[in-house]
Order: sequence, then structure tokens, then C-alpha cells
Amino acid sequence: MSKFYGIGVGPGDPELLTLKAVNCLKALDILVVPQGRKGGQSEAHIIASPHLPSSVAVIARHFPMTANQKEMDDAIDPIAEEIKALVDSGKSVGFVTLGDPMLYSTYIYLLKRLKDQIEIETIGGLSSYSAMASGFNRPLVEGDTPLLIYPCTEDLSDLEQKLMTHESIVLMKVYRNFDIIKSLLMKHNLIKDAVAVSDFSKPNEKIYDNLETVNFEDISYFTTILINKGWQK
Amino acid sequence: MSKFYGIGVGPGDPELLTLKAVNCLKALDILVVPQGRKGGQSEAHIIASPHLPSSVAVIARHFPMTANQKEMDDAIDPIAEEIKALVDSGKSVGFVTLGDPMLYSTYIYLLKRLKDQIEIETIGGLSSYSAMASGFNRPLVEGDTPLLIYPCTEDLSDLEQKLMTHESIVLMKVYRNFDIIKSLLMKHNLIKDAVAVSDFSKPNEKIYDNLETVNFEDISYFTTILINKGWQK
Repeated sequence: MSKFYGIGVGPGDPELLTLKAVNCLKALDILVVPQGRKGGQSEAHIIASPHLPSSVAVIARHFPMTANQKEMDDAIDPIAEEIKALVDSGKSVGFVTLGDPMLYSTYIYLLKRLKDQIEIETIGGLSSYSAMASGFNRPLVEGDTPLLIYPCTEDLSDLEQKLMTHESIVLMKVYRNFDIIKSLLMKHNLIKDAVAVSDFSKPNEKIYDNLETVNFEDISYFTTILINKGWQK
Repeated sequence: MSKFYGIGVGPGDPELLTLKAVNCLKALDILVVPQGRKGGQSEAHIIASPHLPSSVAVIARHFPMTANQKEMDDAIDPIAEEIKALVDSGKSVGFVTLGDPMLYSTYIYLLKRLKDQIEIETIGGLSSYSAMASGFNRPLVEGDTPLLIYPCTEDLSDLEQKLMTHESIVLMKVYRNFDIIKSLLMKHNLIKDAVAVSDFSKPNEKIYDNLETVNFEDISYFTTILINKGWQK
């Protein structure tokens, strides 16, 4: 049936897709894959590739990494229109997105534009932090304790207070502000409670055994830190 | 290789297991499945069943639902010893757990006891809240906003403050305290921003279109509420 499918491909390892995502990929007519840079590779496409039959037509579209709303709209509006036209013409169209499609994803921009126009089905994926916790045999959170997922992209003015008042925290996208984050973790003696990984479960995965010796230049864009004060390393 | 595998089976739909989890289940010698009541069904076992070959020996063990540490230890210590003995004798032993194994799970009790004794691999699973968000085409969180995962089992003294100060919140295990939660959501005009589901993606799934008309007696143990103030229903 003609529909738009948003498919979460998980953090990197192609075995971390759900069966539902794999079955969906196999039945598509067309798969739209996001490129962070024009003509660049699509990480989500690479992860989905082992499951994609040659019958699926793949089209790459550029999604700028920007906080500028106008620039984002100019890039995404025509992609949304293109997807709508394909679905209206009877095609089954997919879009792959890293991690969990409902957590800080590019896919949400498409969903917003298309949700009242065409039929949409979203297929969940493992977030990086969830897969990372399992990969390290390291609980995210236990008992009655809340878990805070905190994206470190922009304003970090309340991060210190959050680090002091929460037992379990996931810091996502620590890239740009790594030095500030590291100094806060050192100040509050949290290095011992933290694990940090770049590109978890991808071929270029990097694990940082001692965050104190890591610098901004060492880490990559997709870097996540798990903090669980109640769990001993 | 003889090892202990903790396997997340996701929220209910057997298609929501990862390929890695399915491949792991197929290669086991023995699968330990948790029962909430002695002699009762194991939900995690039911979800894993379509993927389990008949060659895998299944043994059910009782995990009490209790906050009493002594009662928990008395129940789980012998199960951990049994698993250790099986792995030491060369068996590949699995344990299935609902949702994400690293988030408020029974599996964490076993992991704590066994992590320094035998080799352990944990295989991630979709949490109920993450799968639910995708199932409803409803973003959990966007942009620079933090996401709070809040378990509603015991002390709710800071819930009202959390509801007021957070844009995106997941309320888990709302069962016992549903009436308190509902009145707080009504007081702060959050019913319009919330979706609530019991037993998401299981055969007995129940969706509550209007939380105002729902009462404690209507809902089941596994009930989750997603709140995203920035997303219109």
C-alpha cells in the first residue's frame, strides 16, 4: 500500500535494526536517505544497506545541519513535497534515520510537514544511549530513579545543576561543548560514574577509558556519555 | 561459546526484537524466562516464542514483584547461582526481559550478581516509551529540550514540579498512582499534550483517547503516558 515509512535504523550495527524495520525496507519502492553534506555519505543508508534489496530505488537528499529555521525550511520543504508526490502516485516510500526516530531526529521535520497529508507509519529504532548501555553491561537507571536525557548542543546553563540533582543522566551530542562538560564532570567527581563513546557500534567506534585524558580534538560528532551514580564501573 | 546473554525483547510485538536478539535466541542452549507469579505466564517468553527453536530448553523461574530487598535476594540469589553453574558447565544461557534491559528491569538484578563471575553479553531492546512514540507518530522530544523518564511507582512528591518545569516527560508504571497523576495532568492542563497506552503492541493493548474519562480500574500494570508540550495531537 502506498504510504510513507519513517524507519529507525539504530546506532550503527546493522544487526540492531528491528525485524519490523528490516521487513519494511524490503517491501519499499523507494528509499529516501539523508545526507548531512551534499554528495556526502548517508550514515543511515550505510546501516540499512545490508537489508536493502536491489529492487528498492534509493534517492539521496541533503538535510543541512543547521539551527537556522529558514535554511532548514528551504531544504526540507521540497523534499517533503517530493515524498508526498511519490506516495500520491502509489509508491511506498521510506526514509531512514539514525537511532530512535522520535528522539532529536531529522525525521521529525518530515513528519511535521507530512502528517496531515499522507498516511505515515513510523518504525522504532534503538537509540544510541540505550544500545550503548547494553553494549557496556551498564544499567541506565534502576528502581524509582528518573532518567534525564540531556542534549548538549546549545544552552548548557542548567547542566551543572542537573548533574548535581540527578542520579542517572545521558548526555547526548557532547561534541561541541565537550571541554565544558568534561570540566563539570571533573569538578563534581563524576568521571568515575561516566562512560563515553563516539560512534557506538559503528566501524569507527571509539571508547574513552579515562575521560580526564580526552580532549575535544579526540572525539567525533556522535559522542554520548552515560552517567549512573548508583552503578560501579 | 558459553556465556550468559541478557536479551531485551521490546514492548510486545515479536517483530520489535532486533535481528541481534533473534539470532542470539536461536543459538542458545538454555533460556531462562521470568515469571511474575509462580506458575504464571512469562510475558517476555511469549514475545520471544516465535523466534525460539525447539532445540532451546526453556526453564521458568519466579521473580517476585516486591520492593522488599530480602525477599528479592532470597528469590534471585539461587537463580543467579543456577545460571552461573550452567555457564560454567559450558552452556550458552539466555534470559529474556521486557523492553530495554538497562531501564528498570529485572535483568539488572541478575547482572549485578553475575557480572564479575561469568562472561555476560547484553542485547538491547526497544523500551515501551520509545516504541509507543513511533507507533503514534509522536515525537518524544526535539531540538535542545531534555527528556525526563519518570517512573511513577513510589514517591511522587516532586512529580508536580517536574510536570511544570519539563517540556517532554515520559511517565512509566503509572498504574498504582494513576488517580494522583491524572489529577495533576488535569490541574496543569496537560491532558491535551498526553497520550496514554496500556500494554502497547501486545494483543491486549488499550489506547486512552481521553484521559479525563479514564479511571484506575480501567488501566493495567504496564501503562505509560507520553507528554510533549511542544507537539500537537
